[in-house]
Amino acid sequence: MVKVIMHGCNGKMGQVISGLIAADPDMELVAGIDARDDGHNPYPVFTDIAKCDVAADCIIDFSAAVAVDKLLNYCVEKKIPCVLCTTGLSEAQLAKVDEAAKKVAILKSANMSLGINLMLKLLKEAAGVLAPAGFDIEIVEKHHNLKLDAPSGTALALADSINEEFDNEYEYVYDRSTRRERRPKKEIGISAVRGGTIVGDHDVIFAGADEVVTFSHTAYSKAVFGKGAVQAAKFLAGKPAGMYNMSNVIDAAM
Amino acid sequence: MVKVIMHGCNGKMGQVISGLIAADPDMELVAGIDARDDGHNPYPVFTDIAKCDVAADCIIDFSAAVAVDKLLNYCVEKKIPCVLCTTGLSEAQLAKVDEAAKKVAILKSANMSLGINLMLKLLKEAAGVLAPAGFDIEIVEKHHNLKLDAPSGTALALADSINEEFDNEYEYVYDRSTRRERRPKKEIGISAVRGGTIVGDHDVIFAGADEVVTFSHTAYSKAVFGKGAVQAAKFLAGKPAGMYNMSNVIDAAM
Amino acid sequence: MVKVIMHGCNGKMGQVISGLIAADPDMELVAGIDARDDGHNPYPVFTDIAKCDVAADCIIDFSAAVAVDKLLNYCVEKKIPCVLCTTGLSEAQLAKVDEAAKKVAILKSANMSLGINLMLKLLKEAAGVLAPAGFDIEIVEKHHNLKLDAPSGTALALADSINEEFDNEYEYVYDRSTRRERRPKKEIGISAVRGGTIVGDHDVIFAGADEVVTFSHTAYSKAVFGKGAVQAAKFLAGKPAGMYNMSNVIDAAM
Amino acid sequence: MVKVIMHGCNGKMGQVISGLIAADPDMELVAGIDARDDGHNPYPVFTDIAKCDVAADCIIDFSAAVAVDKLLNYCVEKKIPCVLCTTGLSEAQLAKVDEAAKKVAILKSANMSLGINLMLKLLKEAAGVLAPAGFDIEIVEKHHNLKLDAPSGTALALADSINEEFDNEYEYVYDRSTRRERRPKKEIGISAVRGGTIVGDHDVIFAGADEVVTFSHTAYSKAVFGKGAVQAAKFLAGKPAGMYNMSNVIDAAM
Repeated sequence: MVKVIMHGCNGKMGQVISGLIAADPDMELVAGIDARDDGHNPYPVFTDIAKCDVAADCIIDFSAAVAVDKLLNYCVEKKIPCVLCTTGLSEAQLAKVDEAAKKVAILKSANMSLGINLMLKLLKEAAGVLAPAGFDIEIVEKHHNLKLDAPSGTALALADSINEEFDNEYEYVYDRSTRRERRPKKEIGISAVRGGTIVGDHDVIFAGADEVVTFSHTAYSKAVFGKGAVQAAKFLAGKPAGMYNMSNVIDAAM
Repeated sequence: MVKVIMHGCNGKMGQVISGLIAADPDMELVAGIDARDDGHNPYPVFTDIAKCDVAADCIIDFSAAVAVDKLLNYCVEKKIPCVLCTTGLSEAQLAKVDEAAKKVAILKSANMSLGINLMLKLLKEAAGVLAPAGFDIEIVEKHHNLKLDAPSGTALALADSINEEFDNEYEYVYDRSTRRERRPKKEIGISAVRGGTIVGDHDVIFAGADEVVTFSHTAYSKAVFGKGAVQAAKFLAGKPAGMYNMSNVIDAAM
Repeated sequence: MVKVIMHGCNGKMGQVISGLIAADPDMELVAGIDARDDGHNPYPVFTDIAKCDVAADCIIDFSAAVAVDKLLNYCVEKKIPCVLCTTGLSEAQLAKVDEAAKKVAILKSANMSLGINLMLKLLKEAAGVLAPAGFDIEIVEKHHNLKLDAPSGTALALADSINEEFDNEYEYVYDRSTRRERRPKKEIGISAVRGGTIVGDHDVIFAGADEVVTFSHTAYSKAVFGKGAVQAAKFLAGKPAGMYNMSNVIDAAM
Repeated sequence: MVKVIMHGCNGKMGQVISGLIAADPDMELVAGIDARDDGHNPYPVFTDIAKCDVAADCIIDFSAAVAVDKLLNYCVEKKIPCVLCTTGLSEAQLAKVDEAAKKVAILKSANMSLGINLMLKLLKEAAGVLAPAGFDIEIVEKHHNLKLDAPSGTALALADSINEEFDNEYEYVYDRSTRRERRPKKEIGISAVRGGTIVGDHDVIFAGADEVVTFSHTAYSKAVFGKGAVQAAKFLAGKPAGMYNMSNVIDAAM
């Protein structure tokens, strides 16, 4: 039984994870931390992490950057591993995360979904085989019409994952309408589709002579990030100090 | 039985169409025209169209712009309808086509595939329903890595077909990486994927609140253009003088 | 301003529709009906429809079959049009719906999503063009792993919509593993994929010589049915007595 | 420079491979073997393999079962490795292949396309991660309307590749229309779509909670098998005696 403290338990992701753990016979949510609480959770909730005295095997964090300093202090002091999902940390906070990871296990990833993290890994292998055989590589991502940036951070992470295999020789191209030429070999086209409420689709396309191999990931809701965090917590419980990411979770499962 | 003369019978498309007509019990290829001939076709071939004295119900043309003037003269003189598929005509030739159409039936379209021409028609209806209901419109096209231009002429024709329904209020956007903003409502994103030997894929995406409707067309070979030309020839045989296009063929079939 | 009464306001769909109407400047939710209420809605809720004395232009119903008889009585008596989305009605109730439609406007459809209802309409046109040109028709639907029946009712409705165009000459085939033969022309293959939490994907595939046209619909949540119901309510307000369905809503929008 | 003899050089695949090798600066087609020849190839052609005295590093075979016995004798005698692509060998011939592989390198695979063979490999890894995390596995394949069997041999090979990872605990299901129940966990649904001239599409779908990962392969022509054979010949040249398959080619490339 893996005992978990949910940091940010009353946020949207905190509630999603509460549900996922409640349905998992191998896990137990023993306490929550949140700045506000109305008592509706079936576990004790502390509005100040310093007052939480419940023993746990792992903390899952989906909170806000402002709460992360106290969280890291707590993890180090109590020697509880932490799956850290809050984004937008400052440089100083990132340095503090590194420091904490010398004393306790910390897991941090750009994207918590199991599917995307598996793709990040398999794409390296696929590109290693297909690119030398002449396949061109393209990425198409689709997101909702409120997303401000393009392409998505995940699309760039997928491209980077491939590019690392080739000493970063590939250039990324976002617009072909302004040129008139054959496609250069060492390029990855990245297209960003925006519309409706699409949560996040990513296609990585390897196009060769008369055959195309495509790796696709579709997210149907933000709950997938919760699912990945729960997997990560199971993995991290009992691990020695150090910095981990989702690819370690996947490697351990294989 | 529709009797056809194939203009440009020894070119790639001419041979494709020869095969399609041979397999069609309602059609007969009665003669071919080509600058060069080695006698391998099962029908008589004339290297000079002026010498062709075979009666026919329609001419299908996949030749070269240089041969089109004599072709038009022949059609007008013999009163034979013509499915004109050669592209890259000069302004003077286009004017001559219009003149010829006053005396004989001429059919000319940007894309001869039945599938794309059906989509051009249905998209107008779809956009008329979905755009007012808040759906965003996006197009993704994919072609081989030798294609020089982007986006494809067919992708632009699909976008134009929709835009006409809305007084051309929509702007086309080819690159979102250089801005940081919510998607404007009156925009159609057009993405161009390039790779391998992809003949031509076109997706038109209507993305709304929690649902997405997609119209997709995949071409597996250039033979689809031949198929459309054969359909067009059946339609055009016996028609009065005038300018026709593939949407007339589709309307007649419905 | 279209004033709506929500019948079944505290159910999942009732709450979804409450949110959609709150965000629509042209509509107002003036009252709710539900067997149970805890007072959390911003509009008055009646636990007995007979006691609801609020004037409205339309009722939207997502309740339970047991509540439909009283609902129909109410609509007829108050002359309020009704978008009836509850399924599983008895034969007697369906007869009662028909009776009610003689006195007040009633709208009822197998699937309330705008996208699927548009596809039902466009597929007839597409099949009318493509089937005579030799295209084969196939349907692939995907749903979550808890769904008991296969294929989905919506997949069958899509097939029926096409089949009606051809005097129901097409046979549906669900399994090709038990035979060894070329595909018969007058057949529609319907494949059912089951897995995870997929809300509902439907692909209708027209496969011809070297080209494939696909119509796809993806639902990301059950909210799409709410959206369709809201569209329907706007349409139905002020309409004379009669039986309507979602295709009337679409026709009116075109 | 890898010198190749093409066995079956005047067949469709033989001509495809002739073209591929002509375009490859690292390979040379030094001789062809075929029962019939009209002298149109740019390399010497022998109608009897026993008379071929041209030195080569590898033989590529796309011929007919009846020609395979003499081919194997030749390979063993001359010590030339062989990429054996002819299918439909008898039990006696398969035994002879095994014997030959003790003396010379022989490569034989169910499907010669690089893309499918890569997928066979990556799917094992993907299933090892995703199945324990609760993802359901489904396969959808699409082929032309003349194909007699369903599902395709390649779809079954993909399923088997996954099933081997789980001690063959998964059952394959081809029809869900005859039952009414929740999807069993240990099942792989395999759907077969048939239509038009589709060369061969294969989707392997992993559907989890709120996310779906799909591996897709599309073949645009049978030339992809030629491309795989050429890759295999490069790999096999110089290899010691033994039985190889396409996964060895892929492993070597990684």
